[in-house]
Amino acid sequence: MKTARELGLIPQGRLAPGPGNEITDVAGVSIGPRSLRGEGVYTGITAIVPHPGDIFRVKPRAAVEVINGFGKSAGLMQVAELGTLETPILLTNTFSVSACTEALIRRAVAANPAIGRQTSTVNAVVCECNDGSINDIQALAVTPADAEAALDAARMGPVEQGAVGAGSGMTAFGFKAGIGTASRRMRIGKRDFTLGTLVLANFGAAGDLVLPDGRRPDPKVPAKPECGSVIVVTATDLPLADRQLQRITRRAGAGLARLGAFWGHGSGDVALCFTTADPVEHEPPASFATQERIADAHIDIAFRAAAETTQEAVLNALCMAPAMAGRSGRIIPSLADWLRKNSVS
Amino acid sequence: MKTARELGLIPQGRLAPGPGNEITDVAGVSIGPRSLRGEGVYTGITAIVPHPGDIFRVKPRAAVEVINGFGKSAGLMQVAELGTLETPILLTNTFSVSACTEALIRRAVAANPAIGRQTSTVNAVVCECNDGSINDIQALAVTPADAEAALDAARMGPVEQGAVGAGSGMTAFGFKAGIGTASRRMRIGKRDFTLGTLVLANFGAAGDLVLPDGRRPDPKVPAKPECGSVIVVTATDLPLADRQLQRITRRAGAGLARLGAFWGHGSGDVALCFTTADPVEHEPPASFATQERIADAHIDIAFRAAAETTQEAVLNALCMAPAMAGRSGRIIPSLADWLRKNSVS
Amino acid sequence: MKTARELGLIPQGRLAPGPGNEITDVAGVSIGPRSLRGEGVYTGITAIVPHPGDIFRVKPRAAVEVINGFGKSAGLMQVAELGTLETPILLTNTFSVSACTEALIRRAVAANPAIGRQTSTVNAVVCECNDGSINDIQALAVTPADAEAALDAARMGPVEQGAVGAGSGMTAFGFKAGIGTASRRMRIGKRDFTLGTLVLANFGAAGDLVLPDGRRPDPKVPAKPECGSVIVVTATDLPLADRQLQRITRRAGAGLARLGAFWGHGSGDVALCFTTADPVEHEPPASFATQERIADAHIDIAFRAAAETTQEAVLNALCMAPAMAGRSGRIIPSLADWLRKNSVS
Amino acid sequence: MKTARELGLIPQGRLAPGPGNEITDVAGVSIGPRSLRGEGVYTGITAIVPHPGDIFRVKPRAAVEVINGFGKSAGLMQVAELGTLETPILLTNTFSVSACTEALIRRAVAANPAIGRQTSTVNAVVCECNDGSINDIQALAVTPADAEAALDAARMGPVEQGAVGAGSGMTAFGFKAGIGTASRRMRIGKRDFTLGTLVLANFGAAGDLVLPDGRRPDPKVPAKPECGSVIVVTATDLPLADRQLQRITRRAGAGLARLGAFWGHGSGDVALCFTTADPVEHEPPASFATQERIADAHIDIAFRAAAETTQEAVLNALCMAPAMAGRSGRIIPSLADWLRKNSVS
Repeated sequence: MKTARELGLIPQGRLAPGPGNEITDVAGVSIGPRSLRGEGVYTGITAIVPHPGDIFRVKPRAAVEVINGFGKSAGLMQVAELGTLETPILLTNTFSVSACTEALIRRAVAANPAIGRQTSTVNAVVCECNDGSINDIQALAVTPADAEAALDAARMGPVEQGAVGAGSGMTAFGFKAGIGTASRRMRIGKRDFTLGTLVLANFGAAGDLVLPDGRRPDPKVPAKPECGSVIVVTATDLPLADRQLQRITRRAGAGLARLGAFWGHGSGDVALCFTTADPVEHEPPASFATQERIADAHIDIAFRAAAETTQEAVLNALCMAPAMAGRSGRIIPSLADWLRKNSVS
Repeated sequence: MKTARELGLIPQGRLAPGPGNEITDVAGVSIGPRSLRGEGVYTGITAIVPHPGDIFRVKPRAAVEVINGFGKSAGLMQVAELGTLETPILLTNTFSVSACTEALIRRAVAANPAIGRQTSTVNAVVCECNDGSINDIQALAVTPADAEAALDAARMGPVEQGAVGAGSGMTAFGFKAGIGTASRRMRIGKRDFTLGTLVLANFGAAGDLVLPDGRRPDPKVPAKPECGSVIVVTATDLPLADRQLQRITRRAGAGLARLGAFWGHGSGDVALCFTTADPVEHEPPASFATQERIADAHIDIAFRAAAETTQEAVLNALCMAPAMAGRSGRIIPSLADWLRKNSVS
Repeated sequence: MKTARELGLIPQGRLAPGPGNEITDVAGVSIGPRSLRGEGVYTGITAIVPHPGDIFRVKPRAAVEVINGFGKSAGLMQVAELGTLETPILLTNTFSVSACTEALIRRAVAANPAIGRQTSTVNAVVCECNDGSINDIQALAVTPADAEAALDAARMGPVEQGAVGAGSGMTAFGFKAGIGTASRRMRIGKRDFTLGTLVLANFGAAGDLVLPDGRRPDPKVPAKPECGSVIVVTATDLPLADRQLQRITRRAGAGLARLGAFWGHGSGDVALCFTTADPVEHEPPASFATQERIADAHIDIAFRAAAETTQEAVLNALCMAPAMAGRSGRIIPSLADWLRKNSVS
Repeated sequence: MKTARELGLIPQGRLAPGPGNEITDVAGVSIGPRSLRGEGVYTGITAIVPHPGDIFRVKPRAAVEVINGFGKSAGLMQVAELGTLETPILLTNTFSVSACTEALIRRAVAANPAIGRQTSTVNAVVCECNDGSINDIQALAVTPADAEAALDAARMGPVEQGAVGAGSGMTAFGFKAGIGTASRRMRIGKRDFTLGTLVLANFGAAGDLVLPDGRRPDPKVPAKPECGSVIVVTATDLPLADRQLQRITRRAGAGLARLGAFWGHGSGDVALCFTTADPVEHEPPASFATQERIADAHIDIAFRAAAETTQEAVLNALCMAPAMAGRSGRIIPSLADWLRKNSVS
């Protein structure tokens, strides 16, 4: 299948995408999918690993923005307070947060036996959307072993998009959706940086989607309230003060709104952003450390990149997911098919 | 000049506008413009009066959402804490907040001599944008008497849009802008409600504007950072719990983002929302009062209305403002002219 | 053992305690302890059940205040957004949040098979402290069955305090601590209300504790950073607007500070408050509902009650917990013993 | 008059005070009082100047914490968003915020004529308490010239405490109060730092004050609701990340609570904190700048210092203010007199 950009949906903007137009364009970031398929089971996990080292020992600085908090994510409170990640981020379905949390804790303890004994405990970050219209969520099919498998599968190369990993059973705006990603290059001063976003898209009421060219694709499925969710994870290598990182994180909401969403009541819309610059060590060698910050006069570039990659990543999640039958037997259409039938040329 | 809807820019949505498609469609709300014109002076005040009574004695319940806090508004902290308005809302230019605050305090004290003596003080709410590209803001031309004049001018009828009142010197996306308004009717259960929004639009980088049909009007003015501001004031008669009112207020950001904004670093983007339902009395007759709340299952209608009216009100602020020369002598173009030259039919 | 009040530690205040001086003085609230004892295992669960009905179907209105977010609680984001509880609140140790979450989900689904299928999913609320200085937290001894046992054990009668349930392995200010509770009666207008608080106390550096009479009990244990945590759960039957409930919740921090705490970096200090008045139905019979709110002029009574019950509940958690050996073999002293040795009379 | 420490009220703590036990122990910080006395007029201004340079051009990094937002301070929204000060901080009475704001704007524009023209506008920070029980607040006696005089009076030396400057007409816990200050030295690694706090104390219900030794001084004045306010301004030279600065700011609330306050409904309790380390230049010479951050493992020292200095500064504000008659003619007693009459030895 083709990406939104290959389909001509993305207008020429001020910022060019990174080499792969994906979150892994940010050096060191890797993505691990784990897809579960079985009787009534169509779900999975997507692991986002910020760097190849031990995340507990070298904590990427991060921020969280709750756009609409109708959701069950784990670990966000501590990220909001301390501004660091201590584990990879796992995305999964709503009822599998516990299994993923357990896996992250066990893995961190295995690598750092002092956790919870000689040193502090570990804060597992797991975000979720409800894939119940395709997957039998009550089956609780995801196990800690699946989460380990997703983490083991993490690769820095190309990111598979659409109905894969945590995206397996997701839908958005009445169309089949799932995992999508996009990136932007940012030239600031004489240095080059990258910002990349990966979304787990499961939000938006049927009929509300707006394409960048103004068209409003109608999936012709029964209307129901906007009650999905969307998780936006953004990575960058830009040197940022805590407050700057927080402000970038907030711009994910702008990207979602441009697609026609209004952050519906029943939608758990959560954005996380981390930078690989100047991480915080668990046991720092000195009482003080130095970090870089960008001049605020340049930060609009990153705001723009955050909004644009969120919008494009969701479009990719839609374009890269083929139609399939839901749990009720009803077909969930593909935006790719709609675009083919409604070709403008 | 014609509104965005008259120009065919607004697609048929799920919610119809109110009779005037303006904030005064909400019963009791009145708008008072005061425009100042003089040597280098092209500015003003817009008063939003929530109901015809004494606002200090009968306080409308309200919420505030700081979308991007690069701004100098007054009185927001107390609205955030207590959830009520005690004065009308005045909109003006950045350096005139003090003059407007003083007028609101004096007027409240005149009507309620116990203020600051036998009873609490009064919280004046004044929001601002920087009209410095047209108006000589350092002249501090606005006086408390002008603020009084705006309040005295408040009328429930049709709202003048474009370069009027506080909107006089404002620009957005490189075009001349100012005051805009829009409304939506909401049928919930068997009852009818209205939500109306008025914006003071002074935000958005040239070239970033996206029309609902996907076109991106280029004002052909020199690029500069998004450093304006926008104030969004929404009124409704919907019965709402405090938390529901807060959530509606937040949706203004979605309306702005749909226009192409990413809530730029230098932009003071602030949303206020009040309901005329179940106001709080300054001296309530009893220790407890009853209020209504909408069932959360219906609240998406209000979220949608808040996002849509914000978007449409900004388009109106653009469409209704003719081109004019800025302080530098350079012409600030009108979107209405661009639309004429780029007619699609 | 004796309570802080029986020991003469609590000065006569403006508000009298409820009949049992405990959270269950609020009608309908029940507490269920589950204590686990075994080889290296000294931990447990405490269930707080807001009312005897189905919490998912009749949701108590609630608010959360993160005083210091170094913690791993589950479910707080949705409480912050929607202002309701959908399950009982479970307290446990840090690594048992997943097991408790799973139990709450399974139980809610068993009672409401539509969850995650025909209706929304369920938000499990679980809060935690790290009892690792007494309990072997890495053993992950708590199971979903234990959580079910705590819920089944919930009773409206007297609350057991000290080293019981989730409080089993907790310490505070260098002393043995655990579960504590206190309550206040509030007469407003001609109506009587109750506010009761239960704490899971595991915070405060040795030497920092300040008693209400100004004494500073020294546990004579090695100093270490304030890295425990404390969970404060407050219940009331007062009719409150959402914003009022939020403001009461925040006052838990004042109660903690009066004990000498400064909300240390490593301490996960979280407060939850719910009211049994005007709950929100999952499927409300009408589009609008009526609720009561207290006049703000009276709310200081509830602020005072929240701060005082938090302070007294922590003192009870300390006074009611006997000395015991920690995992290292070192004795963790009891404040009751210190008070006996340092009697003032 | 004697300070609280000279009166033996302050127990030996873990941190020693700075050389003057005042906010000006932080190098570069200066305080400027302006006291107004006249017919019915007993009020003033206190200027806090973070460093001797141009604050607009070299912006100290700052954070704000709204403990209870019943107040009318100006400029806090932008501090919360950007984390910098652009002007000195002025403290005054509630109705004089506009006059002080105007003075700060005019002074910044005089020094930087590009403000509002070639560069952004300036964010004036003014905080207030209501001194209406002593001063005739409706007289609006404070002028912009008074604010200029306070700024001109700023000195780095000893800080006058009690009924001086903005503190002139303030009361707390039923006693005469006003300006108070305190400081702590902090040794971290092999480096020495200072944290100093200045308060404008006007809060607390009569009878609620708790001294560090547990005594509860009763001013024997009629009870009225806690409806004053308190402004806490903390300065430090500690190198801090934005998030760390925010967390320190929040600890002011702990200091207030230790005095017996519960952050009453009618009290505008606001804390501001700034660091002189690594300020942000208005026109930075490069796209990126370096800043230092303390290791989180050491931050409790600053949390402790913030809570302790807040508590001690309020006690100083009380101890250093002699009794005087209020507007009603009733005497507002002095805590110093109470202490003399209730001497413990």
